[in-house]
Amino acid sequence: MKPPIIPSPKGFKAGGIHCGIKKRHKDLALIYSEVPATGAGMFTTNQIHAAPVKLTKNVISSGFIQAIIVNSGNANTLTDIQGERDALEMARAVGGILEIDVSKVAVASTGPIGKHLPINNVITGIERLGKKISPYSFIDAAIAILTTDTHPKFISRQIELGTCPVRGNASNGVTITAIAKGAGMIYPHLATMLCFITTDLKISQPLLQEILKNSVEQSFNCISVDGCMSTNDMILVMANGMAENPIIDSHGLEFDRVQDEFKDITKEIAKMIVSDGEGATKLVEIEVNGAQSFEDARTVAFGISNYNLLKCSFFGESLNIGRIMASIGASPVKINPEQINIYIGKKLLLKNGALCQYPQIEISQILKQRKINIKIELNQGEQRATVWTTDLSPKYVKINME
Amino acid sequence: MKPPIIPSPKGFKAGGIHCGIKKRHKDLALIYSEVPATGAGMFTTNQIHAAPVKLTKNVISSGFIQAIIVNSGNANTLTDIQGERDALEMARAVGGILEIDVSKVAVASTGPIGKHLPINNVITGIERLGKKISPYSFIDAAIAILTTDTHPKFISRQIELGTCPVRGNASNGVTITAIAKGAGMIYPHLATMLCFITTDLKISQPLLQEILKNSVEQSFNCISVDGCMSTNDMILVMANGMAENPIIDSHGLEFDRVQDEFKDITKEIAKMIVSDGEGATKLVEIEVNGAQSFEDARTVAFGISNYNLLKCSFFGESLNIGRIMASIGASPVKINPEQINIYIGKKLLLKNGALCQYPQIEISQILKQRKINIKIELNQGEQRATVWTTDLSPKYVKINME
Repeated sequence: MKPPIIPSPKGFKAGGIHCGIKKRHKDLALIYSEVPATGAGMFTTNQIHAAPVKLTKNVISSGFIQAIIVNSGNANTLTDIQGERDALEMARAVGGILEIDVSKVAVASTGPIGKHLPINNVITGIERLGKKISPYSFIDAAIAILTTDTHPKFISRQIELGTCPVRGNASNGVTITAIAKGAGMIYPHLATMLCFITTDLKISQPLLQEILKNSVEQSFNCISVDGCMSTNDMILVMANGMAENPIIDSHGLEFDRVQDEFKDITKEIAKMIVSDGEGATKLVEIEVNGAQSFEDARTVAFGISNYNLLKCSFFGESLNIGRIMASIGASPVKINPEQINIYIGKKLLLKNGALCQYPQIEISQILKQRKINIKIELNQGEQRATVWTTDLSPKYVKINME
Repeated sequence: MKPPIIPSPKGFKAGGIHCGIKKRHKDLALIYSEVPATGAGMFTTNQIHAAPVKLTKNVISSGFIQAIIVNSGNANTLTDIQGERDALEMARAVGGILEIDVSKVAVASTGPIGKHLPINNVITGIERLGKKISPYSFIDAAIAILTTDTHPKFISRQIELGTCPVRGNASNGVTITAIAKGAGMIYPHLATMLCFITTDLKISQPLLQEILKNSVEQSFNCISVDGCMSTNDMILVMANGMAENPIIDSHGLEFDRVQDEFKDITKEIAKMIVSDGEGATKLVEIEVNGAQSFEDARTVAFGISNYNLLKCSFFGESLNIGRIMASIGASPVKINPEQINIYIGKKLLLKNGALCQYPQIEISQILKQRKINIKIELNQGEQRATVWTTDLSPKYVKINME
């Protein structure tokens, strides 16, 4: 099967190759913008983090990224001062081959912790890869960043900005393209995931960072595979302005459109990551509404999503509603059991804290589907949150045994 | 094989039978003291809790227990007003058959949530069981409270109080006997566990409650199988005073001896519960020292103990030290990575945040054992905590699928 061509924003090139970190599969990706792009980023909040995380935080603080070099197959974490040197050497090699400022080269790594990179392989790989990048090879980059993922994850959208639909004047097409890797360890705070968003949008740095932060809060920070948080996660945005839209430098309609699009794209990517979680056979969407705050709603939802007992029963396509209630009751959020309603799919299973009568066969039908929706009504406020998780399968255990 | 006889404290009788909640196995236990015993209790902090939990909290608030009736095979949770009536009816039936004050009868239930008890079976069961209890049948009670446990859990200790070893005057032998059930869902706050401690000790109620609380904090609140918290958990103590020791009604040497014994007994029981966790093949002891507080130490230790990725690798008898560091880094407790040391068994694997060189074969030997000890030195204070957990096996998933 021919690999798909991922549409790339104006002025971007990307690619991916095998450089020799992994045994056989692609393990080195490069994304490049012809001109320095406005950069935004969010990073793992784990107190132990990888050498490339430190380096790339510095790049983001300068406000610009022109290239991102990513290796998979090695996290470059717990690798001491040597790890920091290796990350810097990767940035330098990219700066050299592309003739760009080293301080605008972001570095990301993902894979097992605690081994030094085979840095010579990486450096000679960068030299080869620098010559192979093109606007048509984003798919190779999307493949090269994967670890235990079963397929590459990407999304590309085009939006029109600067158009007045009534007056019908000239518009500016903006492309936003994201690639990501996930699997395992997905929990809020970006656990073991990388996501790189490229766009030719013209936007100020503070607003780009704001859009990213708002998007992440409701997407990557709303997913959980196993409640663990990684040391390497980052999500970066490069906006190179080559769409030549009037610059977005204040809040308003255009800002809102871009914000909505980013929220949507990051949610889609987040769901792809969960669906491809290690050993996952189900995508479970948990919506909690009627909370006093978004945080309360998300806390209750995560309490359910991280409940191993419940995750096992999703795998088994059976459901004990008591397990859901027990996980809600265990939440630090104060709840009133007598006000709670619970739906599976559109089926009301618990009303005002009391079990409803329902035909088991209908519930079984719902649980056999690949995507399961659970809705909890707390009835104590107006706020809501949705999180996504997976079932817990014996395969998850097997993947993580070694 | 003849079942063991569990030594019982003076004036206590117990027993267990099959009454028809489960298909075949014993499902109803009764513990009785000839005289009303001083009572102490601790209960699940889950906001959703079972009808018997409410009832028994009231019993404890009166300060006395004379009998405990326990059923397994049904949690009597999410069972509405009917569930409360059933719990009360169980207490009444015990009061009737034993001719004791109903307000001194504690009730406990464990099993699946959301079904009504077959109360007629339970009541006729109580009538039969009332005639079968004896000082020699604690083992039947220990068996009748089990759910997915693979074996009964009990411990009995004798201590001498009121003795002066120098003067050699008369001493009072005190017996403390505990039975418990666990498996699944073990997390701090007594998750899905029941423990009943009987003793002929003479002690004031406030000091008994204090001893229980201190003991639970370092035993049952330091274990975790899957990070879930149940709706039904309780630990009760009955101290009937029939050993006729001089009453313990103030702090001092005798209090300390009893406190130490209780801490020891509850820790042993807690470890039995973890070892028999659903699908468990390993008992993992995690000691964190050098913390600024006991709570900080326990939070870090629990962070490690609830880390699914790590639990899978224990099952696989492999270990990536990076996963331990990642779980420490994900803790809300502020740590300094450069000050951390990690030992597996007696082997130093990480010193001042840097990986040590060690022969993999030695680590493999340690990981093959049934009991694994991990020690983390944070080097930022004087406090320590130890928690116990298990590995995560494909069997756990299978047990909880249905």
